[in-house]
Amino acid sequence: MDRLIMLPGPTNVSDRVMNAMSRPVINHRGEAFRELYRGIVEKSRHLFQTEGEIVVFSSSGTGGVEAAVLNTVMPGEKVIVPIMGEFSERLGEMVEIAGGKVVAVRSEQGEAPSIEQVKHAVDSNSDASSIMIVHNETSTGIAIPYLRDICNYAKERNLKVVVDAISSLGGYSIPVDSWGIDVCITGSQKCLAAPPGLVLLSLSREYTSMVRSRKPRTRYFDISRYLEYQKKWETPFTPSLPLFYALDEALNELLEEGLAARVARHERMSGMLYSSLEKLGLKFVAREDLRSRTVIASYYPEGIEDRDFRTRLEQEYGIVVAGGFGKFSGKVFRIGCMGLINQEYVERTVTSVEALLSKMKF
Amino acid sequence: MDRLIMLPGPTNVSDRVMNAMSRPVINHRGEAFRELYRGIVEKSRHLFQTEGEIVVFSSSGTGGVEAAVLNTVMPGEKVIVPIMGEFSERLGEMVEIAGGKVVAVRSEQGEAPSIEQVKHAVDSNSDASSIMIVHNETSTGIAIPYLRDICNYAKERNLKVVVDAISSLGGYSIPVDSWGIDVCITGSQKCLAAPPGLVLLSLSREYTSMVRSRKPRTRYFDISRYLEYQKKWETPFTPSLPLFYALDEALNELLEEGLAARVARHERMSGMLYSSLEKLGLKFVAREDLRSRTVIASYYPEGIEDRDFRTRLEQEYGIVVAGGFGKFSGKVFRIGCMGLINQEYVERTVTSVEALLSKMKF
Repeated sequence: MDRLIMLPGPTNVSDRVMNAMSRPVINHRGEAFRELYRGIVEKSRHLFQTEGEIVVFSSSGTGGVEAAVLNTVMPGEKVIVPIMGEFSERLGEMVEIAGGKVVAVRSEQGEAPSIEQVKHAVDSNSDASSIMIVHNETSTGIAIPYLRDICNYAKERNLKVVVDAISSLGGYSIPVDSWGIDVCITGSQKCLAAPPGLVLLSLSREYTSMVRSRKPRTRYFDISRYLEYQKKWETPFTPSLPLFYALDEALNELLEEGLAARVARHERMSGMLYSSLEKLGLKFVAREDLRSRTVIASYYPEGIEDRDFRTRLEQEYGIVVAGGFGKFSGKVFRIGCMGLINQEYVERTVTSVEALLSKMKF
Repeated sequence: MDRLIMLPGPTNVSDRVMNAMSRPVINHRGEAFRELYRGIVEKSRHLFQTEGEIVVFSSSGTGGVEAAVLNTVMPGEKVIVPIMGEFSERLGEMVEIAGGKVVAVRSEQGEAPSIEQVKHAVDSNSDASSIMIVHNETSTGIAIPYLRDICNYAKERNLKVVVDAISSLGGYSIPVDSWGIDVCITGSQKCLAAPPGLVLLSLSREYTSMVRSRKPRTRYFDISRYLEYQKKWETPFTPSLPLFYALDEALNELLEEGLAARVARHERMSGMLYSSLEKLGLKFVAREDLRSRTVIASYYPEGIEDRDFRTRLEQEYGIVVAGGFGKFSGKVFRIGCMGLINQEYVERTVTSVEALLSKMKF
C-alpha cells in the first residue's frame, strides 16, 4: 500500500525533487554551486514577491525563526508578539532568550487575537522596536486573517515587521514588499514540498542595511555574513548540497505551476477537506474565519482514542496524519494540506478517515 | 570523465549512502523515525567511543561549534582557545559573541601552539572554566599531536573540555570518555562520508547534568532540550530526514569497516599522499610532526597560479581540490584525505597533479 503523508510538514516529495538530491557532489566554493545558489535566490524572489535579498540557512524552521530573532532584537528591546499556540509561544520564548521584552497579545488556544487587540498593543507600546507574527499556527490550524493589515499598520508606525510564514507561504500569497514585511521566514518542507532541512528568509532593503551595521549576536545565524558571502553567491558555511539541489528543483516545480495557481490549489483543496470532513460530523478547532488553508485541526469524536486512530489510519489505510499539541494533545488530529496536495490525496484521506471512524463505531 | 572530489569535505559519497536519501518520507514523531534516530545515536557511540549521550543537529559544522559554545560558556567566563588558523579563530570569535573572555594561545599560521604553551595557559588561568580546542585545523592541514595529553591535563584541572573534531573524527581515533572530553563535535560530511548538513556532539555525563541545570541561551541549539526529546528518541525540531537516512547508512558503512580499520586507512592513505606529493617536489604548510591525516595543505611551486591550477585540474582531470585560506590564499591548495579515500583516489590525484604541473612547466 502506497503511503500518503498528510502531515502538516514534512510533506510528500515528488520523485523529481527526490532524485535531485542524488546529483553529484560539487565544490561549494566553485562555479557550479554559485549558479545553483543564485538560481535558488532568484526563484525564491518570485515566491516572496520581493526585490529584496533572500538568505537560506541549513536548519529547521525553528532555526530560521531564531535567526530572525537574534538579528532583529537587541537586549532590552520591546517586541510585540501575538500568541495563539505552540509556535507563537515558542517565538515569544526565543525573543526572551535573546534578551527582548515580549509584549504578548494573547488569545485562548484555538482562537487568535483580534486585529483590534494587536493594533492596541502597537498603539500603546510606541517604544516597541518590532512586531513578530506567526501567520499560520500549525499547532491549532489557525491562520490570522488580517496579516496584510497588521503588517502595514505596524510598518507605518516604524516597527520592524517579522512574519513566520513557515507553514503557509506558497499556500498563501504573501507579497512581502507591498505588505511591509521586513523578514519573512519559510521552510523547505511545507508548501514548497521539498525535504526538511532548509529555511528561507526574505529581507527588506531597510532590514538589510540595518543588519549590516550591527554587531552580530550569533555566528551561524548571522544574516550580515550570509549577505556578504552572497555577493559571490556562496554561503559562509558548508551548505547541505543535496537539500539545495532538492530546493532548486522544488522551486522549478513552483515556477512551472505558477505561484497564483499553487495558492489557488491550496485554497481549493483545503475547502474540499473542510467541507468533506464536516459532512462526516467532525468539528474543527478553528472558527470559520480563522481556518488555515494548510493545516486542518479536527477534534476527535467522543470515544475515539488518538494513538489508536492514527496508528490504524497509517497501518490500515496508509495515511499519515499528526496529533495535537499542548492542551489539544489527544483531542485533535491534524491534516496537512500542503505542497503536492491534490484532489486524489484529499479524497483518499477523507474516505479513509470515514471508513476508519465507522469501523471504530463512531 | 568521472569527477573525484578531493576536498577537505564535503567528500565523495557512496551510492549506497546517496540512495538512502530517497527512502520514503515518514512521520518524525512516529515509531519508524524513533528507530532510525536510536540507531544513529547507538552507532555514533562507537565512533566517539563513548557511553555518554550524543545529539544530532541539522546544521553545518560551524552550527555545531556554536551550539557547544552557547551551551558551555556563560557571559564573563574565561575560555582557553589554542588558535592556529581560520577555524580556531572562528571558534574564539564565537566564544566572544557568547560573552566569554578568550585566553588565546596563538601560534603563527602554519604552526600550532606547543603543548607547553597550552599547559602554561591552563596553569596561569586557574579561573578559566573551559578549554576549547580545534583538533584539526582544516585551513592549514595541521592536527595538534598532543590532543590526548592536553585534554587529560585540562580535565584534571576541572576545566570543561570541548574538542572540535569536525574534520578529523573517524580519520583519527578519539576515545572521548577516556581522554576526558566533555563535548566532541564532528560533521557528517568529513570522515563519515555522508552529505553535509548534520553535526554530531558527544556529551560526557558531567556535561549532560550541567546543561540540564542551566537556563538555555539558544532555543535551536539548546542541548538540554535535545536530551529531553531524546528520551523518546525524537528531536525537538523537524529533523532533515534524508540526511538522517544518509547518516545512518554512512554509520553502517563505518561499522562494517570497523573504526580501527577506517582510522588505519586514513593514516595509510595520507602517508601515501604526503610521500608522493613530496616526490613531485611539493612542500607542505605543516611541519612533519603536525601534518594532518585528513587535510594536506601544499604550497604551489613558484609561478603556478591558484585559480588556473584548480580550474584545469578539475576540467582536464576531473579532480576537485580546495584553495587556501587567509594568508595562504592563492599560495596553497588543499587535498582532502577523508571518508571513502582509497589507493585509487590517491593515485589518480597524484598522477593528475603531476601531469598538470608538468604541463604548466613546473
